[in-house]
Amino acid sequence: MDPSCTTTHFKENYPIPEPGPNEVLLKMHSVGICGSDVHYWQHGRIGDFVVEKPMVLGHEASGTVVKVGSLVKHLKAGDRVAIEPGALREMDEFCKIGRYNLSPSIFFCATPPDDGNLCRFYKHNADFCYKLPDNVTFEEGALIEPLSVGIHACRRAGITLGNKVFVCGAGPIGLVTLIVAKAMGAAQVLVTDLSASRLSKAKEVGADIILQISKESPKEVASKVEGLLGCKPEVTIECTGAEPAIQSGIYATRSGGTLVLVGLGSEMTTVPLVHAAVREVDIKGVFRYCNTWPMAISMLASKSVNVMPLVTHRFPLEKALEAFETARKGLGLKVMLKCDPNDQNP
Amino acid sequence: MDPSCTTTHFKENYPIPEPGPNEVLLKMHSVGICGSDVHYWQHGRIGDFVVEKPMVLGHEASGTVVKVGSLVKHLKAGDRVAIEPGALREMDEFCKIGRYNLSPSIFFCATPPDDGNLCRFYKHNADFCYKLPDNVTFEEGALIEPLSVGIHACRRAGITLGNKVFVCGAGPIGLVTLIVAKAMGAAQVLVTDLSASRLSKAKEVGADIILQISKESPKEVASKVEGLLGCKPEVTIECTGAEPAIQSGIYATRSGGTLVLVGLGSEMTTVPLVHAAVREVDIKGVFRYCNTWPMAISMLASKSVNVMPLVTHRFPLEKALEAFETARKGLGLKVMLKCDPNDQNP
Amino acid sequence: MDPSCTTTHFKENYPIPEPGPNEVLLKMHSVGICGSDVHYWQHGRIGDFVVEKPMVLGHEASGTVVKVGSLVKHLKAGDRVAIEPGALREMDEFCKIGRYNLSPSIFFCATPPDDGNLCRFYKHNADFCYKLPDNVTFEEGALIEPLSVGIHACRRAGITLGNKVFVCGAGPIGLVTLIVAKAMGAAQVLVTDLSASRLSKAKEVGADIILQISKESPKEVASKVEGLLGCKPEVTIECTGAEPAIQSGIYATRSGGTLVLVGLGSEMTTVPLVHAAVREVDIKGVFRYCNTWPMAISMLASKSVNVMPLVTHRFPLEKALEAFETARKGLGLKVMLKCDPNDQNP
Amino acid sequence: MDPSCTTTHFKENYPIPEPGPNEVLLKMHSVGICGSDVHYWQHGRIGDFVVEKPMVLGHEASGTVVKVGSLVKHLKAGDRVAIEPGALREMDEFCKIGRYNLSPSIFFCATPPDDGNLCRFYKHNADFCYKLPDNVTFEEGALIEPLSVGIHACRRAGITLGNKVFVCGAGPIGLVTLIVAKAMGAAQVLVTDLSASRLSKAKEVGADIILQISKESPKEVASKVEGLLGCKPEVTIECTGAEPAIQSGIYATRSGGTLVLVGLGSEMTTVPLVHAAVREVDIKGVFRYCNTWPMAISMLASKSVNVMPLVTHRFPLEKALEAFETARKGLGLKVMLKCDPNDQNP
Repeated sequence: MDPSCTTTHFKENYPIPEPGPNEVLLKMHSVGICGSDVHYWQHGRIGDFVVEKPMVLGHEASGTVVKVGSLVKHLKAGDRVAIEPGALREMDEFCKIGRYNLSPSIFFCATPPDDGNLCRFYKHNADFCYKLPDNVTFEEGALIEPLSVGIHACRRAGITLGNKVFVCGAGPIGLVTLIVAKAMGAAQVLVTDLSASRLSKAKEVGADIILQISKESPKEVASKVEGLLGCKPEVTIECTGAEPAIQSGIYATRSGGTLVLVGLGSEMTTVPLVHAAVREVDIKGVFRYCNTWPMAISMLASKSVNVMPLVTHRFPLEKALEAFETARKGLGLKVMLKCDPNDQNP
Repeated sequence: MDPSCTTTHFKENYPIPEPGPNEVLLKMHSVGICGSDVHYWQHGRIGDFVVEKPMVLGHEASGTVVKVGSLVKHLKAGDRVAIEPGALREMDEFCKIGRYNLSPSIFFCATPPDDGNLCRFYKHNADFCYKLPDNVTFEEGALIEPLSVGIHACRRAGITLGNKVFVCGAGPIGLVTLIVAKAMGAAQVLVTDLSASRLSKAKEVGADIILQISKESPKEVASKVEGLLGCKPEVTIECTGAEPAIQSGIYATRSGGTLVLVGLGSEMTTVPLVHAAVREVDIKGVFRYCNTWPMAISMLASKSVNVMPLVTHRFPLEKALEAFETARKGLGLKVMLKCDPNDQNP
Repeated sequence: MDPSCTTTHFKENYPIPEPGPNEVLLKMHSVGICGSDVHYWQHGRIGDFVVEKPMVLGHEASGTVVKVGSLVKHLKAGDRVAIEPGALREMDEFCKIGRYNLSPSIFFCATPPDDGNLCRFYKHNADFCYKLPDNVTFEEGALIEPLSVGIHACRRAGITLGNKVFVCGAGPIGLVTLIVAKAMGAAQVLVTDLSASRLSKAKEVGADIILQISKESPKEVASKVEGLLGCKPEVTIECTGAEPAIQSGIYATRSGGTLVLVGLGSEMTTVPLVHAAVREVDIKGVFRYCNTWPMAISMLASKSVNVMPLVTHRFPLEKALEAFETARKGLGLKVMLKCDPNDQNP
Repeated sequence: MDPSCTTTHFKENYPIPEPGPNEVLLKMHSVGICGSDVHYWQHGRIGDFVVEKPMVLGHEASGTVVKVGSLVKHLKAGDRVAIEPGALREMDEFCKIGRYNLSPSIFFCATPPDDGNLCRFYKHNADFCYKLPDNVTFEEGALIEPLSVGIHACRRAGITLGNKVFVCGAGPIGLVTLIVAKAMGAAQVLVTDLSASRLSKAKEVGADIILQISKESPKEVASKVEGLLGCKPEVTIECTGAEPAIQSGIYATRSGGTLVLVGLGSEMTTVPLVHAAVREVDIKGVFRYCNTWPMAISMLASKSVNVMPLVTHRFPLEKALEAFETARKGLGLKVMLKCDPNDQNP
């Protein structure tokens, strides 16, 4: 599967879809490339999710409403919107309790077999399209998706005023987690990574302390983290999925604190579970996010967070292959595809 | 009772106290004047708390350890500390569950019959003295007390990322609440007051929106708040104690949100309770604070909050009467008394 | 409006409705009469909800699926179901966070202008119909509605193991609250009422302590409650709406505890708000309920709660007028209407 | 180290201790034998806790106050009390937030180097002695300690009304967990164990479903649990510490649910962490307990829980060796030592 192929294919042959009663048709503007997009493109599967027929990629997106379904009240043609890629298909128990991300039947852009939105025109459940205020750009709108991962992780971690926070990993998700942790009142965020250049980006977007890891054991990393922060962090957010990093997270977190697992590793993991248990360090995972778009839009509109430093590359949709190659090579942080030939602005 | 009298009296005649095994003796540096100090000075009582013998005022304070009791391990002579004025006398049920502010037997500076710390030397329970980092000033240390009121109120309100917050009242407590709400991730804070000058101070310390109230009914205020924020606020924090303001708070708060009562009014209050109940707007009060000093110090050390604009006047301890007169007349925001003749710096 | 008229009228003239794609058609079996049904019948309005055209009453109901809409997967003809009367019309912010009872556009049986289900055949949103296990009767299914009020109140109160709980009022809602409080682990529940006979019913369904109120002041009631329980209750649940009872609730509740308002009184209420605020007694209202049917069914299926003593009268649907007169006169607790001429069993 | 030796030694040679100002001297009545007592007796260590000098065993205990220290107000000679074995030595950060079990400097009976209370006379911090009502026996008082483990585990699990709960292991801790889960409102508790006789005891004390495990894989166990409960349990409480059981717990728990680890196994554990993370199954450990004695006493006094079936053997203190042998051989559930020669009643 070639991403440009998919999208070009789409562009030329697909008819512009007709929105259902509760859907909106969108003219797409900006779509970020996520690691999972690259992974599906290269490997055709992530865990149990297997691409079995051509699938449009893309789930970090924003665009403009061009047509609304008959039942849609809160949006109208011309509205600029950010798209939450997960859209409920049924009102199940998880939806009813406000944890709709756990709904097993949810539609999700670019998770097989559901098509994504890296294309010219795309229709989506109107309940999961959120109007952007005038002072929030399309690219900020598209970046709400990765920002949401950070929001959900920090919220699950229970970050509160004055916390010391340890973020493992300075890739895009580590960086949004850092940004959100600071916005939620963390006093100090320490970020670790193997790469000095990633860490310098972390410093740029607000890390209080950075620590480059090389050959330290998990216990040594934990000890360095405690030394640099002056105490153990109440919260650790693990964004790499690497077993040693998860182990570091357990050793590093303060008794009574929380370790959130954002990065995903292999199926079985060996960890010092007793060390977490007897110190009541809770271990929580995250699956995507829920209830994050409205708060993200509020934060962006009030300029309380700045995500624009994450965007390092932009390509017109015609150059999708080049964009994906850039992302695959890890040459930057966030590669943004511009789907509207008449407006390539941020 | 004359505050300067009390303190002068103290200074000349009181022997320097000897710390008990779990106490520290402090050389006082900076003590802010609180509305309650002025009230006790003028009226000799607040509600059921009656001053029945000469009482030293002052509970917003910081100083330097000069002597430690035999059991004290975490402090030593020379340490600069902020003082939490409430210190537990017994390990009761409230202490055990982490809500020690509700302990009925708690010692509290300058709440009769307990003496405050507006003096040269003062001894205090060492567990409630917190070492200040080098980059936090004595005055910041003293301001942790009012800041704690804001922290406790915002924490009880459950303020979280992206919230719209309505703060009634732009006095010192309204302002610290505003500062904390922003630090906890509020997207927009709207502050109301009768006074334009207070509101301009609110704007200076971070209010997103200010609204001067004159003759509006509570429902009209609620309606204006909704209009200015673009939606009802999830959280209202009422810092005036005035009945119409409490009513406004109920009308203004979004369904499922929280109204926190910080200001205290008359014993009986007439409110549209049904209006809150059927919209599940929770009404929560605050009594002082608990577990706020460590997080406040972290925030001050990392420069995540700035409370220094609150200090508008400084007087040496010798001019305590003049300082109290200034506070009584409401000429500024926070009047700071400087207790160390050799160091009148912030 | 005459309830039997409404339903008779319905029975003879209304066509049997056709379920929409996400609806089920139900043959109704048992429908309890609620105080609100009687109130609409007698007064034509409750607060802002005004009956402006003939409306079918009834919202405590169970029945059998006779036809399912094209999209319904979890139910089939023949399934016995309990009906949650509130059914979402749109996926708004309240739904997304799991508090769908606060959705302003929700459909609700027998709240004008929405028709209730006191009739022979009725169609309802399938997502809000819950299959009953074989060992749960239709009447138990209908009683899930009032039980849900108790569940939601106790859950909002945060009742936990070992709590002392004060329930004001021993009507149907007071009784279900009592039953749920015990099931959630309350050690002792004290129930007050003006009526000795109601209190003896409370004793029958599990009250640990009963207290008949006559002319005591609110403070006297609070004092008696504390005396009988041996300490102040952590939780008070007020089910009368009377101003003196709400005042008693504030005085009675332990510092740091919660007062839940279930009963509704007049628009403005005079209360000792300061007394609640400085002791951090939270005041929370409830609006109907959400996410209660599945847990109620689990409890009924495992025989963990017994609600059958609440049913004191049964009438066939043909005698609806007599049933409503019985309810209006307060002659029993729960009057049950039996809608299926061929099956009048519980 | 021989337990009877230790206690006999103590009885004859130790002087009766003098209580400090905040202590009480107790004449011991009933002390249960815990697996950890047996382990220290046999192996002289548990993890990092090593017995380096003779240590009195016992921490599940009750007795009668014979003398009170000068500062003690809430107890007097003659009071019958249950003893919380963990007693704070300092007011640290964990105490202040209500999680005092995490305080690193806490005193704990029979955790080296602190002596336990399996003896004739024993002094203890008065704040951690709780008066027993007349209708709670000494043995019930002693059993509050294991019951507290169950309370803390169920509370950390967030068990609420209607939950399905999976308890792995039917030893004493599994059984108290089961009892507490039911008392907190669990609709159905399923208990697994290798032993049929343990499971029949579980059935006797309230298990809704029992499942004997033999050679099933963790996934097979999870599948059987789901089949028997009719759905995945919201909560799993693992009381064995065995790696396969922890794995079963992860597979078995419903998305969005909680797995609590009570049993402790080897230092490193291999688990399907990703499987928990992407379904947001939180993994939480417990370290002893906090804030459980008052609620346990309330529950016992109101007869809401019955722990007496746990006691299978009783020995006078003189026969401590025989008692420990009985416990070591696993011949019963709870072996109780009776320390008062004049009162060997329950």
